[in-house]
Amino acid sequence: MKVCKFGGTSLASAPQINKAVEIIRADSKRQAVVLSAPGKRDSQDIKITDLLINCHREKAAGKNYRDTFKTIRARFLELVELLHVEVSIEEELDSILEKIEQGATLDFAESRGEYLNGLIVSRLLDAEFVDAAEVIRLTADGRVDPESYCLIEQRLAGVSGKFVVPGFYGTGPDGNIKSFSRGGSDITGAIVTRGVKAEVYENWTDVSGILQADPRIVPAARTIAEITYAEIRELASCGANVFHEEAIAPVRDVGIPINIKNTNRPDDAGTLILPQRSLEAQPVVGVSGKKPYRMLMAEKFMLKRYPELPGQIKDILAQQGLFVEYDLKGFDTLAMLVDNSESFDEQAVCNKITAATGVDNCHFGIDVALVGIIGAGLPSQTGLLGRMLSALDQAGIQVRSLSYGASQMTALLAVNLDDYVATLKTLVASLQV
Amino acid sequence: MKVCKFGGTSLASAPQINKAVEIIRADSKRQAVVLSAPGKRDSQDIKITDLLINCHREKAAGKNYRDTFKTIRARFLELVELLHVEVSIEEELDSILEKIEQGATLDFAESRGEYLNGLIVSRLLDAEFVDAAEVIRLTADGRVDPESYCLIEQRLAGVSGKFVVPGFYGTGPDGNIKSFSRGGSDITGAIVTRGVKAEVYENWTDVSGILQADPRIVPAARTIAEITYAEIRELASCGANVFHEEAIAPVRDVGIPINIKNTNRPDDAGTLILPQRSLEAQPVVGVSGKKPYRMLMAEKFMLKRYPELPGQIKDILAQQGLFVEYDLKGFDTLAMLVDNSESFDEQAVCNKITAATGVDNCHFGIDVALVGIIGAGLPSQTGLLGRMLSALDQAGIQVRSLSYGASQMTALLAVNLDDYVATLKTLVASLQV
Repeated sequence: MKVCKFGGTSLASAPQINKAVEIIRADSKRQAVVLSAPGKRDSQDIKITDLLINCHREKAAGKNYRDTFKTIRARFLELVELLHVEVSIEEELDSILEKIEQGATLDFAESRGEYLNGLIVSRLLDAEFVDAAEVIRLTADGRVDPESYCLIEQRLAGVSGKFVVPGFYGTGPDGNIKSFSRGGSDITGAIVTRGVKAEVYENWTDVSGILQADPRIVPAARTIAEITYAEIRELASCGANVFHEEAIAPVRDVGIPINIKNTNRPDDAGTLILPQRSLEAQPVVGVSGKKPYRMLMAEKFMLKRYPELPGQIKDILAQQGLFVEYDLKGFDTLAMLVDNSESFDEQAVCNKITAATGVDNCHFGIDVALVGIIGAGLPSQTGLLGRMLSALDQAGIQVRSLSYGASQMTALLAVNLDDYVATLKTLVASLQV
Repeated sequence: MKVCKFGGTSLASAPQINKAVEIIRADSKRQAVVLSAPGKRDSQDIKITDLLINCHREKAAGKNYRDTFKTIRARFLELVELLHVEVSIEEELDSILEKIEQGATLDFAESRGEYLNGLIVSRLLDAEFVDAAEVIRLTADGRVDPESYCLIEQRLAGVSGKFVVPGFYGTGPDGNIKSFSRGGSDITGAIVTRGVKAEVYENWTDVSGILQADPRIVPAARTIAEITYAEIRELASCGANVFHEEAIAPVRDVGIPINIKNTNRPDDAGTLILPQRSLEAQPVVGVSGKKPYRMLMAEKFMLKRYPELPGQIKDILAQQGLFVEYDLKGFDTLAMLVDNSESFDEQAVCNKITAATGVDNCHFGIDVALVGIIGAGLPSQTGLLGRMLSALDQAGIQVRSLSYGASQMTALLAVNLDDYVATLKTLVASLQV
């Protein structure tokens, strides 16, 4: 069995929903379907979920919320009409409105887009509708309760055809509807995948997989064919906006692959997220970065004799609201990348550090970006890292710091903030060779 | 004025002393001379200083020490005879023997080689003999008392010709002879240099300067033409047996260059140790390494949330007598190079760490060596580091970790212990291009 989860843009309009339905029908193994709420149809549009949140807020604030609900109603009515599907959508909408009027929770209100979409698509597919409230359990802080796996397995034991589960919500410990605090429907897809022990978790979206770098910065970035769970986690730690960690954890634990696919280009292979991968074709999967940081350099003769010193410096920085993203130690020196999203009085901070810790000297350098090169093939191909450094040098980019080995799949560089875009472009270009 | 200090091998025999004298006479600026005791004439020989120490030990243990003293006496008598110098050496030797008989301190006994050598060479040069006991002050723990600079300045204010100061000793806080605990005559040379405000501190030895790497490991290593104080310190921190830190500090503080020269090849330029140097000709000065270490790899999901964790692991290792030379942090992982000169039960240590700190997992990898690439030119030429990594890759050497940037002049690599020699050779070869 395959689980296919469709995101909001894949379900934003009747033509998009038809594409999804066609994809589901094209493979008899695509038995389990998980759905988001209808997303934006264009950049000016508002997602159904956001409309539902607005509606709930307006009600809570004692404002007029019926106009917003009318917009929601109109959109669903249009969908049902265009899709020629027979669903008692008016009754469902009336019931939701009534519950909002009676003071339903935000979690209930914001999850109704998935619920209604699930009803519509299950009817279109002639599939069984399985309410997430029945089979998904959440903890009080909005995370997966592992009991869900078991509930899904039991509930779907007798189901032989296709079935549809709305994403994003389940039931909390109090028995009421509860939505995921982060990661949304992607988590539902992962839970269902694990519950039914699917062979693959297909995650259908509007891009043909995960790219080597943010395409807004590096238009030449290509799709990553295969990436491991561990690599994707490192990529995300380096700032990449990739698949959410909590949506990976349920399937990673049992080693089921995730396939990121494009609803608009279903024949594209997309990206496979795997426990292990073949490293030869692509030793490095991608690059990502975070910024801005300011590099704090401190010197203390015989640093090793003062093991408490880095912690003391971090404490002083934290008292000033400054946080250290990354630090490097030398024999007599240390460098710390300090979060610099808001400006601060550098000299005053240095004076505090010098006075409190007795460092020999301490100063802030210019703003830098932290860039990660991620690939489980790095250990076996040191020459690749060498070529990347040479390429940066040829592009006139100075590497301020470099660290590799704590994780054998990640090399972290600091470069001048001004070189951020050029660094990502140069690194990606060196991957294409 | 130039200060020239000659080491033990440069003064081991009459022909060697004559070479030194010739060098001193060749430049009228070489006004200040600092001397070690006569060293080994060949690999089977015993240094005068070691003979003096043996003699003192034998006396202290109630053993026969007169035979040892006879050897010392014979050697000095021979020197005086071969050099045709008129010194009342017999009287001086009788007086030293008498003091040893009366229970003189070890510091007194072991410093007499320099004292006698100073007498002999000052007579040869027709130079003034300035006893180090007069002008050099040491702290109780055998380090330089800065008062020495002033004493030298005052004592030598009226001296217009050459003068000779024996190395290795001075006067302690109790008024008795005290020798340096480390670094010996090189420190005396540095103190005199600073005291007389010389233009250069010439340090004459048996090699034509500092080499790019240990020549026993890398025969192709060349002499370093120029190196900064800071670079030499990094090189020493990485394991190189170079000029002692305490012999650099006095002149570094006032920016006087040190010139390491070869008594046997006086025309060789040797190595200049400077406050700053031109980086273009040689961005990297040399490589050095330390071994063996075992690489401890630990994993903890969201490591940054546990800032105390690295310290906890180090504490547990220290309880087992294991010390961390170097550590690297990643997002969820950390690597520590643990001193592995004695074997230990790895599994037991890992179990202790896991139980006490809650790391997700923890294991020791194979033995590694830590290799440093040192050069103040590294920041401006990232391509050089890239080429070095590529060269290692081509030589089949896997880089286990890499760190650059805490000190902007040092890149630290960990390589498999078996690759240690090949790594140093490959890196030096890549410098020669």
